[in-house]
Amino acid sequence: VPTAFESAIAVEETSPGLYGVTVDPGWSIGERPNGGYLMALVARAAVAASPHADPLAISAHFLRPPSFGPGVVDVDDLRIGRSVGFHNARLIENDETVVDARVTTGRLPKDDPEWVGQEAPQMPAPEDCPRGKPTTPDGTYISLFDRLEVRYDPATVMWAVREGGRQDPVLRAWVRIDGDDTDAYAVAIAADALPPAVFALGFRGWAPTVEMTTYIRARPAPGWMRVAVHTQLLAGGWFDENALVWDADGRLVGQARQLAMVGRQRKGRPGADANDR
Amino acid sequence: VPTAFESAIAVEETSPGLYGVTVDPGWSIGERPNGGYLMALVARAAVAASPHADPLAISAHFLRPPSFGPGVVDVDDLRIGRSVGFHNARLIENDETVVDARVTTGRLPKDDPEWVGQEAPQMPAPEDCPRGKPTTPDGTYISLFDRLEVRYDPATVMWAVREGGRQDPVLRAWVRIDGDDTDAYAVAIAADALPPAVFALGFRGWAPTVEMTTYIRARPAPGWMRVAVHTQLLAGGWFDENALVWDADGRLVGQARQLAMVGRQRKGRPGADANDR
Repeated sequence: VPTAFESAIAVEETSPGLYGVTVDPGWSIGERPNGGYLMALVARAAVAASPHADPLAISAHFLRPPSFGPGVVDVDDLRIGRSVGFHNARLIENDETVVDARVTTGRLPKDDPEWVGQEAPQMPAPEDCPRGKPTTPDGTYISLFDRLEVRYDPATVMWAVREGGRQDPVLRAWVRIDGDDTDAYAVAIAADALPPAVFALGFRGWAPTVEMTTYIRARPAPGWMRVAVHTQLLAGGWFDENALVWDADGRLVGQARQLAMVGRQRKGRPGADANDR
Repeated sequence: VPTAFESAIAVEETSPGLYGVTVDPGWSIGERPNGGYLMALVARAAVAASPHADPLAISAHFLRPPSFGPGVVDVDDLRIGRSVGFHNARLIENDETVVDARVTTGRLPKDDPEWVGQEAPQMPAPEDCPRGKPTTPDGTYISLFDRLEVRYDPATVMWAVREGGRQDPVLRAWVRIDGDDTDAYAVAIAADALPPAVFALGFRGWAPTVEMTTYIRARPAPGWMRVAVHTQLLAGGWFDENALVWDADGRLVGQARQLAMVGRQRKGRPGADANDR
């Protein structure tokens, strides 16, 4: 029996290079599917088209606000090498491309790393960390947080509990999908699962991502992942967000960076200004 | 009179969306054009096709070993928004796509950043830093280092001067193009200008990049840029490399990450195994 996550990223080839998918409303923030979920979905289609078994890198342009329901992922093989495959993978909904991604496929390493420069952060145990709530104070329903258990390092979310709170845009959390369902695709969703770190600076509202690139470096061990995100620069309304993901064994399994715009707060209409770019 | 760098990334529209280019041998490591140079070149073509003035993000797949001489950049506009343009830009040589890039165009911020989390590193003055030499001990000619003045923070290149030297894969350097020719495209080349940081771990040889994504965050002030690169994980022969670029005013102007394979040393044939993937 497939898990909820496996079902949500299931693909079915309908003709060569075309994969039928269903954008599941269960992995969303308000009316918008999570970007990491969509990246996992297009990567799943690219791997289905590839002779290689694993996703190594996914870089995505978010062209239009995505919606729920049936869609198609159109995969073009750019080049298939002996150990690496390069693919374009476009998620098409209502005849429009909403996500245009480039996916690298290959084989994830199984052996211990030869060099590690980034150790997993020390955090209080998950049960001592507050859980991300599926409903925000302004009434937005985050279905993602029903499927994904997110437990914040309390030191990084003081801004959320103090009136007018501000701190550096750094967030850390434990993240677990559906119990223990942590395959390689789970890394893509974990890398985009936390709220924008610029919330710590007082910004709120939907922060549309224009580009995100995620590297998957190993298949995660089952259990709690740790995710750390931070923003290095906010200028002219643009901010970056850098994410690292470690698995339950403390192994670095994912690296990601995205470029996004700070949102304008629009009560009850998250995502509205993704359209206004 | 255009500078050498401006000439090297010049594009000429030959038909709608098609840009004639010349891959200049002056920005190379051995027989291979520098990847950052090629990213600057395809970004230049995308901006020529865009109503927006600046490159914001470039994510590139390196499909095949590039060569010197005439080529074409084929630009497809994926979506043109009011403040952001999304483009595919493919560098085609001898009827084959060698670089397949996705370029985001827009307008770079001019005002001071609203938040900075990553200050420029402190380094000895450029004149106290050893210069990257255009010829390596194995006889490879790095024409890039004739055009680009690279001066290493001595603390980060001890591995190069001690027999069997090893240290953490972290490199810092001053980088200056052609005197003071630092436009937005210079950021793309600076982000890929240093040797692979894994050289500090004892690896040598060509390290083929499969994916690189560079964000350009501001137009750099004229003069010396500072570049810091580090590797977070080396596993199964794959390594990442993270680069930050600051301008002469100490402003963060670029962020990049690439995924590459450690090279096998092949004397006098850098780039040979980029073909063997």
